[in-house]
Amino acid sequence: MFRRNYSSALLEEAVDQLSSLPGVGRRTALRLALHLLGQPRENVDQFAGALTRLKRDIRTCPDCGMISDDDTCPVCGDPHRDRSVVCVVESLRDVLSIENTGQYNGLYHILGGIISPIDGVGPGDLRIRELSGRLEKGEISEVVLALSTSMEGETTAYFLYKQISRFPVKVTAIARGVGFGDDLEYADELTLGRSIANRQLFKP
Amino acid sequence: MFRRNYSSALLEEAVDQLSSLPGVGRRTALRLALHLLGQPRENVDQFAGALTRLKRDIRTCPDCGMISDDDTCPVCGDPHRDRSVVCVVESLRDVLSIENTGQYNGLYHILGGIISPIDGVGPGDLRIRELSGRLEKGEISEVVLALSTSMEGETTAYFLYKQISRFPVKVTAIARGVGFGDDLEYADELTLGRSIANRQLFKP
Repeated sequence: MFRRNYSSALLEEAVDQLSSLPGVGRRTALRLALHLLGQPRENVDQFAGALTRLKRDIRTCPDCGMISDDDTCPVCGDPHRDRSVVCVVESLRDVLSIENTGQYNGLYHILGGIISPIDGVGPGDLRIRELSGRLEKGEISEVVLALSTSMEGETTAYFLYKQISRFPVKVTAIARGVGFGDDLEYADELTLGRSIANRQLFKP
Repeated sequence: MFRRNYSSALLEEAVDQLSSLPGVGRRTALRLALHLLGQPRENVDQFAGALTRLKRDIRTCPDCGMISDDDTCPVCGDPHRDRSVVCVVESLRDVLSIENTGQYNGLYHILGGIISPIDGVGPGDLRIRELSGRLEKGEISEVVLALSTSMEGETTAYFLYKQISRFPVKVTAIARGVGFGDDLEYADELTLGRSIANRQLFKP
């Protein structure tokens, strides 16, 4: 067996970096690196430049935490949005998901995480003070909690509820239940139980 | 239904670039872009820098076509390799796969593709003249063809065979047959047929 290492340090470095991406193993990273190596130099420069610029030039809205190319966040700056409702989410990805539904026309508040003692994330690490600051202005009448149903999500929701209840606002949470198209027999007991307990008037 | 587009041009550009990678759709590209956005700026700069440097600084061996960080290719420059055997492969990835087996100690010759009229790749686009140049020096006694078994691979192998037969070298091809661990019943007829026809002395 002849086994020597002829790897290129440049290739190794690229593979190391690419395999740091979520869901990308070393095999995939090598495939991606070799793909980039086969591209014209301008394309690779454009590729790398787009990622550098994304991180360097993007701004964060001081109010809601949304990303923005300019100083004004596109949601907060939109005069057609309902400024009396704020939906609290964990991350930017959740905003994009909710926007995709086309069912929400209020503002957002991105926490930037979720309370998780195991990961060392406490309330002070999240944008909770900023939320209180927004509520103090008195323009908001409803806060919609749209957090995950994990232990951490429930803890965060409870903590937020205690903070928010100081203000004269209605606190709601997104509905939980059996998803559209899901078979009842495959729904877990907790979900099905809640969706029965929270049953709503049938609107045909 | 409220449906407006609040996308960031910077994010869109990053997603466009990331989704140009093989096997990466727009959903995955968005996930990767958001992951990078969540990283410290130095990490993203390092990430982008590694890819830029990979393309900008890597060299190609004038003999075998291997990538190299220096002027000397690590395989051709290794005094322990058998310089009388050259294995012809389609791409760098094949070299890495063969090196991983630890079963080959000769040199390589990367064609940089395969003859494919549909894709407009003819013999002139491959490093075939370079192969003839290496054979003319008279130091090589065996050429191992390690090409894929596709129509294009077979065409390329046949074309190479005709070119090589001018020189006093032995031309071999890697063995085809049922893979280790494969069930006979799932092997395709062609593979199983060839592996019976090319049966070898049993060495227990």
